[in-house]
Amino acid sequence: MGADLVPRRLIVIGAGLIGTSIALAVRDHGADVLLTDRDPAAARLAAGLGAGVVLPGGPAAYRGAPADLAVLAVPPAAVPAALRDAQKHQVAHVYTDVASVKQAPIAEAAKLGCDLTAFVGGHPLGGREWSGPLAARAGLFRGRSWVLCPTGESGAAAAATVTALVRACGARPVLMDPAEHDRAMAVISHAPHVVASAMAARFVDTPETIMRLTGQGARDVTRIAAGDPRLWLGIMSANAHPIADVLDEVARDLARTASALRSEGNTAVTDLLVRGRVGHGRIPDPQKVEDS
Amino acid sequence: MGADLVPRRLIVIGAGLIGTSIALAVRDHGADVLLTDRDPAAARLAAGLGAGVVLPGGPAAYRGAPADLAVLAVPPAAVPAALRDAQKHQVAHVYTDVASVKQAPIAEAAKLGCDLTAFVGGHPLGGREWSGPLAARAGLFRGRSWVLCPTGESGAAAAATVTALVRACGARPVLMDPAEHDRAMAVISHAPHVVASAMAARFVDTPETIMRLTGQGARDVTRIAAGDPRLWLGIMSANAHPIADVLDEVARDLARTASALRSEGNTAVTDLLVRGRVGHGRIPDPQKVEDS
Repeated sequence: MGADLVPRRLIVIGAGLIGTSIALAVRDHGADVLLTDRDPAAARLAAGLGAGVVLPGGPAAYRGAPADLAVLAVPPAAVPAALRDAQKHQVAHVYTDVASVKQAPIAEAAKLGCDLTAFVGGHPLGGREWSGPLAARAGLFRGRSWVLCPTGESGAAAAATVTALVRACGARPVLMDPAEHDRAMAVISHAPHVVASAMAARFVDTPETIMRLTGQGARDVTRIAAGDPRLWLGIMSANAHPIADVLDEVARDLARTASALRSEGNTAVTDLLVRGRVGHGRIPDPQKVEDS
Repeated sequence: MGADLVPRRLIVIGAGLIGTSIALAVRDHGADVLLTDRDPAAARLAAGLGAGVVLPGGPAAYRGAPADLAVLAVPPAAVPAALRDAQKHQVAHVYTDVASVKQAPIAEAAKLGCDLTAFVGGHPLGGREWSGPLAARAGLFRGRSWVLCPTGESGAAAAATVTALVRACGARPVLMDPAEHDRAMAVISHAPHVVASAMAARFVDTPETIMRLTGQGARDVTRIAAGDPRLWLGIMSANAHPIADVLDEVARDLARTASALRSEGNTAVTDLLVRGRVGHGRIPDPQKVEDS
């Protein structure tokens, strides 16, 4: 895409993995980036990696003309207050976030009196289990989907600016309604995390001699359970009901299978194994997703 | 190890992934291998891959002197009858199997009147999600654990022969009681498979547009759900109660978490996430296992 469509001046609020990766991606297009983080060391580290220039004092200390775009790269629960504060200090014309939950933060931002005409929420997919600026790279989003959730209030100019950011990062914009996005993430991302945790929790008291026999299967099933519990608590609290619905379905299938095993009810066991195989087969392989 | 400790003449009953890989491994040590399979095409294919010579007509047609070792590389439910038939035709001095369940097949073999002094059950770990002779390779077990489950009846000579096979395959023999083995496998292998299936079953009715957003996390959690349902039904039926116990624990954790999410009970959610992270951290990484 032409560099002229990339926002020229950005403020990235939150210099973690996602914020720093976005900053690196737009820097590759020659954009100016100001970086802030609640933890000044993280912002300095991101700046040291070439992601931009630290804005000392954060949004409250901003005195320049509004930037083209402010990216709120903070956890879901922190989005509403971050948007309110950034808008109070007029740091940018347009605002977006990167949280993996959309509906509750938007509702909360509305309650806080935020200007939602200037906001288009976003969710770049395909993160990594690591976090922090050191894990960041400009190509993190290349070929990936990036969901955009404009609301009825979102202005067309805001949507165009945020879409340009997505394309500058090499990602594929996917438009979704916020509630639809959250139900989708509950099924394909948030509930799998809890399921991985519930399986991995069985290993807490399993003797070392047995853990040594663990193979790639159990390792894969539980890999995402290694994620940061605080980060995931925030995600889960913000998308509680859709996640709970999926967890109840999984729990029912497991309890039914346990009961069938005890009573030699092979039909129910086979039914679950077949449904699982069919469901797994519906996951596109990474290459196909990237090609699309 | 010295080639002199490798069994010189083997009969491999069941020319699937495991049987063919074992045959290839001992062939590399110069052993003679006779191959049989319920499906003559599979045996011929394994022979064509260099795994040995087809024994037409199977164990019932065997007329030679007993081999050093017969490997019953058949599903768990097929082990008792395969052992009885092989012993009836005196195909070998010593017998082992490769099933991922030990207690029920041994009990059933005893009922069928098998000579358990000549039998030491085995379970080579670290299979792959593929199956069939084409996926086989001599190095499949190299550096892996291979559980051996001698019973009170197993003779010392039988144990020595089976241990020599394990070492010839480059694997590390691990002695366990059959019941202990089965409970261990329920936790680290069989229940994870059902949990992966129960999560993947949610994808059966998920719209294509949403499935396209699926990332590596959901792909990993559900990868083993791609396994053959018939094979897994056999494993689960043979180890039903230990698996059911683990599934009930996972289901309880999931139901409790769903309930906590609905009532904003962050403590219970955090508790599961933390236990999951700790449990996952107890899985040794593959390199460490192989070095041990």
